[in-house]
Amino acid sequence: MHAARLSLEAAPLAGIPAIEPGADLAALIADAATRTGVKIQSSDVLVVAQKAVSKAEKRLRALDDVVPSDRARGLGAKLDKDPRLVQLILDESTDVVRAEHGVLITRTRLGHVCANAGIDSSNVPGGLVSLLPEDPDRSARHLRAQLRDRLGEAAAVVISDSFGRPWRLGQTDVAIGCAGLTPLDDRRGHLDSFGHELQATLLAVADEAAAAAGLVRTKEGREAVVVVKGLDRYVTEPDGPGAAALLRPREDDLFE
Amino acid sequence: MHAARLSLEAAPLAGIPAIEPGADLAALIADAATRTGVKIQSSDVLVVAQKAVSKAEKRLRALDDVVPSDRARGLGAKLDKDPRLVQLILDESTDVVRAEHGVLITRTRLGHVCANAGIDSSNVPGGLVSLLPEDPDRSARHLRAQLRDRLGEAAAVVISDSFGRPWRLGQTDVAIGCAGLTPLDDRRGHLDSFGHELQATLLAVADEAAAAAGLVRTKEGREAVVVVKGLDRYVTEPDGPGAAALLRPREDDLFE
Repeated sequence: MHAARLSLEAAPLAGIPAIEPGADLAALIADAATRTGVKIQSSDVLVVAQKAVSKAEKRLRALDDVVPSDRARGLGAKLDKDPRLVQLILDESTDVVRAEHGVLITRTRLGHVCANAGIDSSNVPGGLVSLLPEDPDRSARHLRAQLRDRLGEAAAVVISDSFGRPWRLGQTDVAIGCAGLTPLDDRRGHLDSFGHELQATLLAVADEAAAAAGLVRTKEGREAVVVVKGLDRYVTEPDGPGAAALLRPREDDLFE
Repeated sequence: MHAARLSLEAAPLAGIPAIEPGADLAALIADAATRTGVKIQSSDVLVVAQKAVSKAEKRLRALDDVVPSDRARGLGAKLDKDPRLVQLILDESTDVVRAEHGVLITRTRLGHVCANAGIDSSNVPGGLVSLLPEDPDRSARHLRAQLRDRLGEAAAVVISDSFGRPWRLGQTDVAIGCAGLTPLDDRRGHLDSFGHELQATLLAVADEAAAAAGLVRTKEGREAVVVVKGLDRYVTEPDGPGAAALLRPREDDLFE
């Protein structure tokens, strides 16, 4: 129907300064858009780096303030990781999925399975680490509402982080939060070009949008926001189910 | 350095007909580009759907021609799958990674871990199924060379398929083959904006390019080729290591 007109554009929003703890992200984004002449529209998707959201929400911890438990010390020794970092990872997690080969993979309290519960120390001042936002879907909804107030346009918001994969090297960006974007496009029941029902096609739209945005960030990771245009058909007026809809229910997990 | 100028565009190449077994993909792509006035350049990445490559390479099998072994019958009964399909999956695989809950995840002979060894029956005539290309990196190199001959431009080629993920719902497109694109961007050793060395940042460029292309395909999956522009810095004159470089070495697999 609209096949010939589908196209995607992704570009970082220039002019966003380094995010300070407690910063007003919506104000910084709106200012940057105004100064650089970028028109943010309700059909756009803003992919915001998790680190920027974590900083704005003051989700930073000083390792010196952490007293590791015996369990954290044990895991730290086994994995050659700072036991204080291990303690923070355990505090943010419900389960340890794997702890081997120097890798600590956990299920976070929100249900994402990733290395180190998403905690890391790049792009934060020395001695500090950043935790994932407490509830990235809520963060996305909040940012979307604030941007709508400032810009009069209800662009969708995705909060992205880079996750590893069990059988593939390298990381890809995935959506840990979203608002106003259909996270999964259910193509089951549609007919393929031979008229058969399509099998097993449930496209992880929000994760692919995060991945597209990941390609236009630089190595130094300074771009807090990438504007993605062309996903109009997935942008919704309601905030929708968020990235929580992307989590496989635990009872279907074959790999825990 | 080039931060402000990074941007990505992805759009399907219109005008490619349904691919017949044995079709000359390079000729179809070159013709479509000429007819639709799309200028394919050496800095572009062409993301080609696995199904199109499999058909062109006649990687189709009739289920009626398959005699299932006892093992295939057993797995088929356990998983509620056609034992002839299970036999084909086993033939294409070195190992069964999981066989539970109606799901058969294997390691293919080339090392990709995915459901059903990538075999499926959508968008192929009734009674047939499509297998993955025998060597998708070789297919990508071959297609790139043929396109260079026809167009005088050595665009990179990615062959993409949709894979599920263990802990996330939905599928994302990944690169099962590539030529002329840096599959992994090693950002380790770079300094972040605080001057610290970046941790664990190895970007799966080819997989993110496949994901970006996946967003502009329609539900019916008719678009064999998506042209991605803006990844110039990852496009290389040599064909490079291909998507094989994205496979985690088996000795580092924590989840088999």
